[in-house]
Amino acid sequence: MPSHRYRDAFSRVRVPLAEPGAEARRWPDARLTRAPLWVPVDLRDGNQALAEPMDPTRKRRFFELMVGMGYTEIEVGYPSASQTDYDFVRLIAEGGVAPEHVTIVVFTPARRDLIERTVASIAGIENEVVIHMYTATAPVWRETVLQRDREELRELILAGGRDLLELAGYLPNVRFQFSPEVFNLTEPDYALEICDAMTELWDARPERPVILNLPATVEIATPNVYADQIEYMHRRLARRDGVILSVHPHNDRGTGVACAELAVLAGAQRVEGCIFGNGERTGNVDLATLALNLHAQGVDPMIDFSDIDGIRSVVEDCNRLELHPRHPYVGDLVHTAFSGTHQDAIRKGLAEHRERAAADGVPEGEAAWRVPYLPIDPADLGRDYAAVIRVNSQSGKGGIAHLLETGYGIELPRRFQIELAGRVQRYADASGGEMTSAELWSVLEREYLWDPGARSPIASASVDASGARSEVTLRIAGAEHRSVHAGTGPIEALTAALASHGAAIEVIGLHQTSVGAGAGAAALSLLEFRGADGRTRWSAGHDGSVLAASTAAVVRAAGTAVVRAAGAGAGVDTGAGVDTGAGVRVGAGAD
Amino acid sequence: MPSHRYRDAFSRVRVPLAEPGAEARRWPDARLTRAPLWVPVDLRDGNQALAEPMDPTRKRRFFELMVGMGYTEIEVGYPSASQTDYDFVRLIAEGGVAPEHVTIVVFTPARRDLIERTVASIAGIENEVVIHMYTATAPVWRETVLQRDREELRELILAGGRDLLELAGYLPNVRFQFSPEVFNLTEPDYALEICDAMTELWDARPERPVILNLPATVEIATPNVYADQIEYMHRRLARRDGVILSVHPHNDRGTGVACAELAVLAGAQRVEGCIFGNGERTGNVDLATLALNLHAQGVDPMIDFSDIDGIRSVVEDCNRLELHPRHPYVGDLVHTAFSGTHQDAIRKGLAEHRERAAADGVPEGEAAWRVPYLPIDPADLGRDYAAVIRVNSQSGKGGIAHLLETGYGIELPRRFQIELAGRVQRYADASGGEMTSAELWSVLEREYLWDPGARSPIASASVDASGARSEVTLRIAGAEHRSVHAGTGPIEALTAALASHGAAIEVIGLHQTSVGAGAGAAALSLLEFRGADGRTRWSAGHDGSVLAASTAAVVRAAGTAVVRAAGAGAGVDTGAGVDTGAGVRVGAGAD
Repeated sequence: MPSHRYRDAFSRVRVPLAEPGAEARRWPDARLTRAPLWVPVDLRDGNQALAEPMDPTRKRRFFELMVGMGYTEIEVGYPSASQTDYDFVRLIAEGGVAPEHVTIVVFTPARRDLIERTVASIAGIENEVVIHMYTATAPVWRETVLQRDREELRELILAGGRDLLELAGYLPNVRFQFSPEVFNLTEPDYALEICDAMTELWDARPERPVILNLPATVEIATPNVYADQIEYMHRRLARRDGVILSVHPHNDRGTGVACAELAVLAGAQRVEGCIFGNGERTGNVDLATLALNLHAQGVDPMIDFSDIDGIRSVVEDCNRLELHPRHPYVGDLVHTAFSGTHQDAIRKGLAEHRERAAADGVPEGEAAWRVPYLPIDPADLGRDYAAVIRVNSQSGKGGIAHLLETGYGIELPRRFQIELAGRVQRYADASGGEMTSAELWSVLEREYLWDPGARSPIASASVDASGARSEVTLRIAGAEHRSVHAGTGPIEALTAALASHGAAIEVIGLHQTSVGAGAGAAALSLLEFRGADGRTRWSAGHDGSVLAASTAAVVRAAGTAVVRAAGAGAGVDTGAGVDTGAGVRVGAGAD
Repeated sequence: MPSHRYRDAFSRVRVPLAEPGAEARRWPDARLTRAPLWVPVDLRDGNQALAEPMDPTRKRRFFELMVGMGYTEIEVGYPSASQTDYDFVRLIAEGGVAPEHVTIVVFTPARRDLIERTVASIAGIENEVVIHMYTATAPVWRETVLQRDREELRELILAGGRDLLELAGYLPNVRFQFSPEVFNLTEPDYALEICDAMTELWDARPERPVILNLPATVEIATPNVYADQIEYMHRRLARRDGVILSVHPHNDRGTGVACAELAVLAGAQRVEGCIFGNGERTGNVDLATLALNLHAQGVDPMIDFSDIDGIRSVVEDCNRLELHPRHPYVGDLVHTAFSGTHQDAIRKGLAEHRERAAADGVPEGEAAWRVPYLPIDPADLGRDYAAVIRVNSQSGKGGIAHLLETGYGIELPRRFQIELAGRVQRYADASGGEMTSAELWSVLEREYLWDPGARSPIASASVDASGARSEVTLRIAGAEHRSVHAGTGPIEALTAALASHGAAIEVIGLHQTSVGAGAGAAALSLLEFRGADGRTRWSAGHDGSVLAASTAAVVRAAGTAVVRAAGAGAGVDTGAGVDTGAGVRVGAGAD
């Protein structure tokens, strides 16, 4: 790669932060403790980067979304550059669109005719208005684009500032903003000189502050370099208490979010960006990620993201750009886990969360969050847990157990989870795709509930248990066998009867869980057993009653044991394949 | 937003970097001067996050892509967790897939049976192999998932380390890697204790180094906090020269790239991630962005991204996930500019680049890059300039001029660019969409080349220029008028003839440009003129000869002037709409 072409560009942007007598940089020790002022620029900077800019209907819909979410300062357009933008500002002037607490920002270059048109656009607006004037100040822009040296450009900018003052300075609801565009590539002393000249010209005071917005128009260095640049300005700007220090990062290096965060640590009070990060090229910094990052570390972002999918839908419709499935906080895949260890941990963490909330008598949505692998509770964003855990060939027992629990209400014992995961993985490996809870249930059915190899001679069994007495009826290879067992439970009686017909199994454990809930719930019995070959296996039974489900599990286990043993030349082998599950009958009142 | 739920999580992760007697953190003053060792984990960490994990064909294709790009250490799978992964490692063992300089990494938990299977998978591989063992070490994981305290977990990890040593320590081509998973949420002293115990156990030495990989498994804090954590470890780890310090950031906060970069400043030597950032939830850190960020600041990333669209195509096919159009460096929109000021600056910057390269006798692809708004030359990535500038209602003269120049070879004078931009904007505002160069040409045709209002009485004009004598033939309202003009050029003669028939225009400027190139090139004449109403307007003519094109522009201008003046009751008004352009004839040899 011809990387040598870029050496110059990078070496120019470092700010020597420490100066004689001053202490070192402070931002790495600072903490984010409250939300900055967020200013969405979706309707201007975001809009101008769309292949299909917003029509008036989309503009209004987006604006109303932002107001509803709680943004109090919104850049609405570039009225001197686009008729649609001009008309939208006029719509606001007519009233009814912007609540009175919302500050309206309009954007203009430093050119008198365009400033005039900008000021004309805001005539009659009763809201507070910010007129945002920008001029690029970096050397390459001065030399190649504007063909002006430092002094000439300073004069051009001050002339624009004077025009603004003349044309709109008398309006009591108007404040001014200046952006030295490409601030991050501008010589620090020049940026400081221009900014101080503007706040002097505009008489920046705490009661009528000037916004100085310092854009990283094109990202060019690691985010700590931008933070140094912001701290440099923060500590040197004149009339600091009459200045609102604002940042406007882009995302060319994929570090826009970091730049904004470190800039706030360094002294920035206001952040411009777009909701989900639309904008020229790689976009503006993403205000949603920034807000939810604050949320995730315990600081209220002051913006309502409790219906993130509703917000996403409006933003996608207005921008006609879909979000990526891995977009932080909002993508379709960001609250999912496919890997087995992640799933297992999340399942345990969710259980711990529910138990702790119940024990503390706190709603789950209020309890402190500490679920592994999920930085925040999806419920905070209006999402539920259902989609968090998904299963494919990379998944383990935890995810499978979670899906069967959420989909069917089944609680599986841990040893069975391990057993089942192995079977599921073979199906998932073969299909190559994701498995739904219904598909998992069908694996469980095929592997544990259906005929064990279609060669079991045991057609059916029923147990009539009454007090301490159990009557067992077996149908094996066409013949019926009854036996009565006293002093034992029904499962013991059944295994004894089966053993007496050469189908002995050793029951290691029998677990019951319900499938479904309420009146429609059925029982699922999971039986861990050992057959004549000494290997441990599992079988299952599924029925309306617990006893019938258990009986079915035992009959299936016995059939499996017989079929397996037959391979070794032992035990009953008296018939062709028979379905062991369907024939089971259990007397009424058995459970 | 219930942000209070997360206060705890955040307060736990700060590292007090300064210690008694030690100097303060160093990373904010460090610079990136060479590429770290990049280790793509797409085939393991990325793969396990896919709804459809890769089949063997996709795995192999992805692996070969990475080898071809220049990666020398590649994590290929989790052989104890997936048969596909196991089989892929066996495929490598059979030879022919992995060149001998490529190190193969396999991933395993710290459990003896799984370590056994992992070691079995690598039997016979002749490449260098890294066995990467991981265990989560953070408090929530210890308490909720593993149910082990610090001491118990330490013993579990060391037992895994001893198993590895026993089962694979004797293999001369095998090295070991340990990841304290969720390092960034683990108490720093505990992480240090475990890491030092592992390098002691595995006898880390410069000639057989141990990789200590410190994952930000779930991003939870601003990237400077992770950098502090890495520098803390970097400065305290035992056997530091026998350790390769590695990082593995995820992207939950959208700051994975920043975390990796600041971690490298803080002492990390190796970075794990995925190409374009696939992975659980929001993904792993994006190795492509990291590499190209280095490139953009003059440091060779040591990985070949010169065909980024080819790379993208393989990655998208293998992951079955499309990249976002604003994804840094690779998205469809990242080398575009829709806004007028950006377009104008880029156009000037590209021209300056071409001129400078030519003046210096350097190929354009080698000349230092300083084009506004484009952090790197798209040509470095195998893209061309064609798509950089696109036009919609937010665009200005620069973009329009650029598209007409690249699409038609037309060079427009600056004043006409401004004039044309206003017309284009009306079309773009009306259509709401993007405009191609063909659509721009058609606007130019309709607005400047076609009938000026379909009411011009001037049917045609021809000028036969010979030496200092010009013969003009006008056809107005059905009648033909000839006049001979001596001592003037053909255009002066024509305007004089038109003026004598009440169709006076004042020519302000006449510009010639060619349309197309070579033998098929035609002339485009652009005429700036003033009519009887005193307003300045433009007209154009398009023909195979320059004189014919100019004549057509003048006739159209005169027609426009007449029609405009007719509105005010003045000048010729003798007929219905006639096409002024088609009727123009010019004598041979006229140009």
